[in-house]
Amino acid sequence: MKNTLIYKYIGKVLIGLSIILVFPIFVAFYYHEPIKGFIIPLLISLIIGFILTRFKCENKHLYAKDGFIIVALAWVIISILSSIPFIITCHISFIDAFFEAVSGLTTTGATIFEEVEHLNKSILFWRSFTHFLGGMGVLAFVMAIIPLSHNDKSMHVLKAEMPGPSVAKLVPSLKKTLFYLYFIYIALTIIEIILLLIGHLNLFDSILTAFGTAGTGGFSSFNDSLASYTIFNKYVVAIFMFLFGVNFNIYFLILMKAFKNALKSEELKTYFLIFICSIIIIFINSYHLFNNLFEAFTSIFFHTSSIITSTGYSIGDINILPTTSRIILILLMLISACAGSTCGGFKVARLIIVCKTIKRDFLKTIHPNSVHTITFEGKVVEEDTIKNTCTFMFLYILLLLSIMFIVSFDGFSLETTLNAVAATFANVGLCFNINNFSIFSSLSKFVLSIGMLLGRLEIFPIITLFTSLKLKK
Amino acid sequence: MKNTLIYKYIGKVLIGLSIILVFPIFVAFYYHEPIKGFIIPLLISLIIGFILTRFKCENKHLYAKDGFIIVALAWVIISILSSIPFIITCHISFIDAFFEAVSGLTTTGATIFEEVEHLNKSILFWRSFTHFLGGMGVLAFVMAIIPLSHNDKSMHVLKAEMPGPSVAKLVPSLKKTLFYLYFIYIALTIIEIILLLIGHLNLFDSILTAFGTAGTGGFSSFNDSLASYTIFNKYVVAIFMFLFGVNFNIYFLILMKAFKNALKSEELKTYFLIFICSIIIIFINSYHLFNNLFEAFTSIFFHTSSIITSTGYSIGDINILPTTSRIILILLMLISACAGSTCGGFKVARLIIVCKTIKRDFLKTIHPNSVHTITFEGKVVEEDTIKNTCTFMFLYILLLLSIMFIVSFDGFSLETTLNAVAATFANVGLCFNINNFSIFSSLSKFVLSIGMLLGRLEIFPIITLFTSLKLKK
Repeated sequence: MKNTLIYKYIGKVLIGLSIILVFPIFVAFYYHEPIKGFIIPLLISLIIGFILTRFKCENKHLYAKDGFIIVALAWVIISILSSIPFIITCHISFIDAFFEAVSGLTTTGATIFEEVEHLNKSILFWRSFTHFLGGMGVLAFVMAIIPLSHNDKSMHVLKAEMPGPSVAKLVPSLKKTLFYLYFIYIALTIIEIILLLIGHLNLFDSILTAFGTAGTGGFSSFNDSLASYTIFNKYVVAIFMFLFGVNFNIYFLILMKAFKNALKSEELKTYFLIFICSIIIIFINSYHLFNNLFEAFTSIFFHTSSIITSTGYSIGDINILPTTSRIILILLMLISACAGSTCGGFKVARLIIVCKTIKRDFLKTIHPNSVHTITFEGKVVEEDTIKNTCTFMFLYILLLLSIMFIVSFDGFSLETTLNAVAATFANVGLCFNINNFSIFSSLSKFVLSIGMLLGRLEIFPIITLFTSLKLKK
Repeated sequence: MKNTLIYKYIGKVLIGLSIILVFPIFVAFYYHEPIKGFIIPLLISLIIGFILTRFKCENKHLYAKDGFIIVALAWVIISILSSIPFIITCHISFIDAFFEAVSGLTTTGATIFEEVEHLNKSILFWRSFTHFLGGMGVLAFVMAIIPLSHNDKSMHVLKAEMPGPSVAKLVPSLKKTLFYLYFIYIALTIIEIILLLIGHLNLFDSILTAFGTAGTGGFSSFNDSLASYTIFNKYVVAIFMFLFGVNFNIYFLILMKAFKNALKSEELKTYFLIFICSIIIIFINSYHLFNNLFEAFTSIFFHTSSIITSTGYSIGDINILPTTSRIILILLMLISACAGSTCGGFKVARLIIVCKTIKRDFLKTIHPNSVHTITFEGKVVEEDTIKNTCTFMFLYILLLLSIMFIVSFDGFSLETTLNAVAATFANVGLCFNINNFSIFSSLSKFVLSIGMLLGRLEIFPIITLFTSLKLKK
């Protein structure tokens, strides 16, 4: 990390974090709870952030690699600082707190708490707030509130940070793009809060539930997740989970009143198709296990929406589902929803590109002289994007297997191991056979935390960070 | 299938099959067993083969696609004809007989017989003989014994038939290549038979065991597979299984006394490394579950060798192994041994190319202007080969998941389903939690049979066959 600009950026991120930490302090004041757990990380990030921003910038250029390193470093540092409230307030070990913080920021929603209803309100708020921050990307948030002098160079940072294969340039300026994205994000969240209030949920829980939905996180303030919610609210959350799985470009197009273009989206259609087909198959496979057809539909609709968007809320026991349904849900975990949404996982856009690549290369094998180009959303996909998508898939599988290998030391069954790894790596958090992740060993919890970060940052930044650390020695 | 040359080839294959069917008839004569089961398919293949070879050849060219179709058609027809002895002699249903025949020819070794010790000697011989034939490829066998007029064009057929990404042109002429390959194949088999005889096994079982090892099949004439063999014979089989997992090019180089080149092989080194590392990890993970260290080593060495080469012999209960060991063994199933060997699966050569591609594309992402070429065995790998390898991997995973999906209807646990599909698709046949495949439904058995064929022919030919059949309509 010769580039001193990196330190400057990290410094700004830390100052941003110290501002963010003011919110849970307000909540703690309101509920007369101790604020020590939030004050300490606030001061640490403020001081270190202040020192780092004083660094002299010898270098004015920011390369793709630097962007990756900034993002990876920022996420690791923010995760560590975000775990301090859990350590101080809940008296849990660093590994547990780190797991919980990473799970929150990466919008996974897997928890190590066996019992959440007794936690402080400010801690519950902090858990869900990390979802909200992590969903749109902590960095994007920080960049939006801190004026940056090197606006063009920030694209590299944003590219490494934002979910999905392409950050579509919606409007020429980066700042404006971020503004629109946040406008959509916050507007949808507020609408959900209002609907939940209408459905007789109190304000505090409405806000927390909406944070979890918006970030596609899944932390709940109730031990049984959303099982005690009214039917109306269950459907509100199910529908909003699905909506937050849609590429934000679509909402932007709708804002611009380009409805036709929005509905033409190949990815949106495929996402919708996968969603509907999954519900139908799971319904046929498992409806007889429920008390009545309406209950079956509600449960299957809710859980499919929860899993495909990597949210992880639940409204009942999913362990009753038979093998076929389980396989579909685990596949949905790994595929996840649209690129450019707040979801984790492989993304529908990549799936489409991979499938088209398979088809093209297969045709090429049997007709060696034929020429085919791959199009996506009406545009020709560059060979570099195809290659990147393929590499991403290989790495995805390779890392999934590596993490599974380490977690398997704990001796849980192969299905449980696979499921726990898929649930964390794809940032879902909901898992068959497992209610909370405290059953795993510290090693597994640490590896699963790294897995969540890898999954959330789409692998490349974290690997760049580790390889560049190794190269430095 | 406009190309009439296809019919001519299929005709020759059928005549070849009728010659092959004479062998089990001899065995039946020797043991005074009924020969009806073999005579009927012999006559059918002889008559149809005779008719097809009379076809007029309007077309003299054979394209890659035609090669795929010939191979796929030939395997399907041979599988159907090979199942007739099971139907007539063992009175089982067509689906069961087809599963058993496909399992034999694809060298999978998964059986639907709950009890094999009461089967006729000639049936036992036929089962193992299909391994021996399938191992080197039925077609290669037929082409070796029947003079073909279109020698150059046969390369397309052989390419679709032979295992592994490249049919190395060892010697300029195809016939000579086949001669050397068969010389090595048969020589190793004979050496194994002699060693097994020294280890106090009778001639009949020695031949059958050697057939199963050579073809990396795994059908045994005993209900407990090889558990009752002497320690000496267990080690003989374990070592020969490993040897049949080596690329035959290596033996060719050794025959030519090019020892240095043989030992330099990247694939051989990687294969050996994977083998040793797997044994060490499984040993550490599970030695405490055995009576003593020697028993542990024997069992782990044998089963690792059996699974990595997709043979599927066993010498004891593998269900005692813990999750980490299971994951490693299932991964070994899917990876399998060297290209250019008789094994099924993904192959080490492909794994090396995929890993190098990941590394290159990752480097390209963080250093966009860098140029890297991928080398394998000292030669630059062409972009087309890389693409093909990647497509193959995608299809491999896609088909694995599709078959799993259908088999999951039977309602077995996710682990059992995954394992059964991996065991058949990668042509291993050995499976945790399952002793024989009769427990599955007819639909599953049929789909698993197709899976075995897809796995053995490395996917492309079978898909070409289906797509070209569809296009015709």
